[in-house]
Amino acid sequence: MLLLNLDPASSNPLYEQVLRGVMRLVDDGTLPPGTHLPATRKLAASLGVNRTTVFRAYQELWARGYLESRPGSYSTVRRPGQLHAEGCAPHQEQVRWDELVPPRSRELRAALRALPVRPGGDEDLVDFSSLMADRDLCPADDLRRAVKGVLVSRGKDLLGYGDPQGYLPLREAIARRLRTHGVTASADEILVTGGSQQAIDLVLRTLTRPGDRVVVEAPTYSMAHPLLRLHEVEVAEVGMRHDGLDLDTLTAVCAQRQPALVYTIPTFQNPTGITTSQAHRERLLAFCQERRIPLVEDGFDEELKYFGKAVLPIKSMDRDGLVIYLGTFSKVVFSGLRVGWVAAPKACIEHLLATYRFSNLSGNTLGQAALARFLREGLYEVHLRRLHRAYRGRMQAMLKGLAAHLPQGVEWTRPAGGYTLWVQLPEVAIDEAEVVSILRRHGVAVVGGRGFYASPRPNPAFRLSIANLKEPQIVEGCRRLGRALASVLEGRHAA
Amino acid sequence: MLLLNLDPASSNPLYEQVLRGVMRLVDDGTLPPGTHLPATRKLAASLGVNRTTVFRAYQELWARGYLESRPGSYSTVRRPGQLHAEGCAPHQEQVRWDELVPPRSRELRAALRALPVRPGGDEDLVDFSSLMADRDLCPADDLRRAVKGVLVSRGKDLLGYGDPQGYLPLREAIARRLRTHGVTASADEILVTGGSQQAIDLVLRTLTRPGDRVVVEAPTYSMAHPLLRLHEVEVAEVGMRHDGLDLDTLTAVCAQRQPALVYTIPTFQNPTGITTSQAHRERLLAFCQERRIPLVEDGFDEELKYFGKAVLPIKSMDRDGLVIYLGTFSKVVFSGLRVGWVAAPKACIEHLLATYRFSNLSGNTLGQAALARFLREGLYEVHLRRLHRAYRGRMQAMLKGLAAHLPQGVEWTRPAGGYTLWVQLPEVAIDEAEVVSILRRHGVAVVGGRGFYASPRPNPAFRLSIANLKEPQIVEGCRRLGRALASVLEGRHAA
Repeated sequence: MLLLNLDPASSNPLYEQVLRGVMRLVDDGTLPPGTHLPATRKLAASLGVNRTTVFRAYQELWARGYLESRPGSYSTVRRPGQLHAEGCAPHQEQVRWDELVPPRSRELRAALRALPVRPGGDEDLVDFSSLMADRDLCPADDLRRAVKGVLVSRGKDLLGYGDPQGYLPLREAIARRLRTHGVTASADEILVTGGSQQAIDLVLRTLTRPGDRVVVEAPTYSMAHPLLRLHEVEVAEVGMRHDGLDLDTLTAVCAQRQPALVYTIPTFQNPTGITTSQAHRERLLAFCQERRIPLVEDGFDEELKYFGKAVLPIKSMDRDGLVIYLGTFSKVVFSGLRVGWVAAPKACIEHLLATYRFSNLSGNTLGQAALARFLREGLYEVHLRRLHRAYRGRMQAMLKGLAAHLPQGVEWTRPAGGYTLWVQLPEVAIDEAEVVSILRRHGVAVVGGRGFYASPRPNPAFRLSIANLKEPQIVEGCRRLGRALASVLEGRHAA
Repeated sequence: MLLLNLDPASSNPLYEQVLRGVMRLVDDGTLPPGTHLPATRKLAASLGVNRTTVFRAYQELWARGYLESRPGSYSTVRRPGQLHAEGCAPHQEQVRWDELVPPRSRELRAALRALPVRPGGDEDLVDFSSLMADRDLCPADDLRRAVKGVLVSRGKDLLGYGDPQGYLPLREAIARRLRTHGVTASADEILVTGGSQQAIDLVLRTLTRPGDRVVVEAPTYSMAHPLLRLHEVEVAEVGMRHDGLDLDTLTAVCAQRQPALVYTIPTFQNPTGITTSQAHRERLLAFCQERRIPLVEDGFDEELKYFGKAVLPIKSMDRDGLVIYLGTFSKVVFSGLRVGWVAAPKACIEHLLATYRFSNLSGNTLGQAALARFLREGLYEVHLRRLHRAYRGRMQAMLKGLAAHLPQGVEWTRPAGGYTLWVQLPEVAIDEAEVVSILRRHGVAVVGGRGFYASPRPNPAFRLSIANLKEPQIVEGCRRLGRALASVLEGRHAA
């Protein structure tokens, strides 16, 4: 007979009271290991509670190691940690994993530990560091309906492994989106990935070997750098000018040694926000075609053109099938869905698919199907127009604010879309990390420029993002930036 | 004035009639490029349809390249492919991607092309080849409710990038599940991945370098082989005996050269279905501890113990923190969710997390949250019991059927759980591919043994899976197997 005091009036659910009661009796030795608990029906009757209550308590007891886990013994008491007491010493970290992994893994762990921590806790902070689109603009309800819709209509189809190349209706929808940017790609020439980072990784895995040269812009997307180290490739940086990567340096770098690929972000580049001209694109493509260098075009922000004339992606001019185009929904819809894609010639996609299939089997069909529905119903374009309206105003406020407040000698870019701008300081006596922390003390968070380069640069620079800020915050943030930078330039903070 | 003939009585939706009408007028030159279409409101009024109808048609026209995509020109007609006509030749596959990718990628593409095609179309076929759990047993409605539940209660949290290590409540739930198998791991010692294949890949990426030796069982999980080739490691195969991998061979293989890791599936091994004894586990672990070789334990089918006494995972005995344990929900819940995990000492998890973060950013939070809810509500355990009941009966029918029908000289394993069995033929005059196609002609699909090895083996063997079959199909399948193998052994099919 198991005696437990239950209090139906308590705010603790009854099942939890049963759970705690039994745990206490086991812990204090009243119920020694090997004791059989009464059947759920019997205990429920004797305690005057529902049988489900007891069942749930027993399940939790089992999960917590208070009941044997062997079939047929589900009601036999054991003491958690009993196994250890029976001969195995408690978990001791005797193996030195640092010594077991290759140097590359140690280096990546160091990079992980060095990642900037998301600023938080400070209500008043103006956070120019986040690249995650404003949640208030996220079409959460429409997406919820899309998920629900596919679960109801396509539930069975979504249970198994999906098409490794990506859910076909989504690939078709992506192909239609790409046509609006002048890119002709069939659903066969598209591979859906778990986001844009996975797409870059996939391209590197398929096209490079350790030691190969890879050309990137300097600065470039900061998370590309540790990924390139993971691949153990030789990174050749080509500086960004006001009009895009320096084509003369590119020529010199490629003459030295043929690279496995050139990675470029021609539109609203991360971090600078620079968009290259039609002429620059044509020259870059012509150069790569002549040298037969695969050109990886990251169009992560392609859909965020909200000012002026749009320039079509390099991929739209790609006669020779040399351009691998990367896209993502993370920056415009919902980063938690993890859906990106690669558009490339069929022969290239087939190689990418082999790598993808053997390292992932297949992607997350539920998210892909929900997104396909969202696109098919025209909700995506409605949402995009809403985003454009919002960010057009925000970027205008930003550019106006910077012009009004930043001290002379500071330079910044003037993007025609996207979320990011780049600020470059003249030569100052203090280093970049110190500048970032001075800004922080003035109530603005930015991302220091260092992480966007493979090798150190002389003058401090940083990235500003308006992704997660509303206009009044932007206005106030520019004011603070101005004050903070003025004090930096005047050397008031110099060591 | 735009003249279109609409038929409200037609089964074609009105928006599609508008769409087709405009496309025809552009294609036949009636509306030349540069023409401005009327505003949606105006056209809707003149056609006597809803404005949304016209809006939707315009959107689709835009998506199909029939309207300019530049802001401010959304109603200007263009001709699809116009860009090509303006100077770029149509898409020509001039680049030879086969020559641009490293040899490894060509090899993987060949492996992709060689993957067995899922048999289909034949109603009468008994398909012993599929490892995907019976959809009729999938808790689709409960999962649907879980997804809906998290979207309602946690929608906002799921919008951004999730915790790169995995949704915390799910890691806690996994930790509780592991305790039922005698494994003590905290949520900190668990990393959630996009399925089990990604977990194996992650371990290989973090622990090995090209050229390193990796020990695997022979036969082993077939999709591990191309993945090992992707990593360009040297594969050392250790044969499976009736009681698990041959420990003497393992000793010899490791004395020759220290491996970067040993990969083992001790429970319901894929493909053989063999479960090793407690003693075998202790010896294997002691050996790896002594040599300081990381032991990767793939517990993909751990939860599917439905006969007899359960043996605890090797991980439960791991005092030194040397075992990396891999788990997945794909084989018991819903492969389309793509959720697996790694349980390992914190120091090892941190290295794995660095690799994961830089190659993926984060996982699919929505699926992870839904699964966490499914577990928290006790639905997982209810479902598991249902699976156990079903497959216990199916495996019994299978073993009885094989004993009744397979001819003398043929050997097979007798699993105590999971889905797979292994059949080994004596020396025959025909090769394995031929045996598989003979079986197919007798109405049974199996997976030939070849793909489970890195190097060829003399006698034909194949894997049987009961994952997707009900008892009557299993009974009939065994009868057909018996007839087919009898004819093979009697040499009636010999070349």
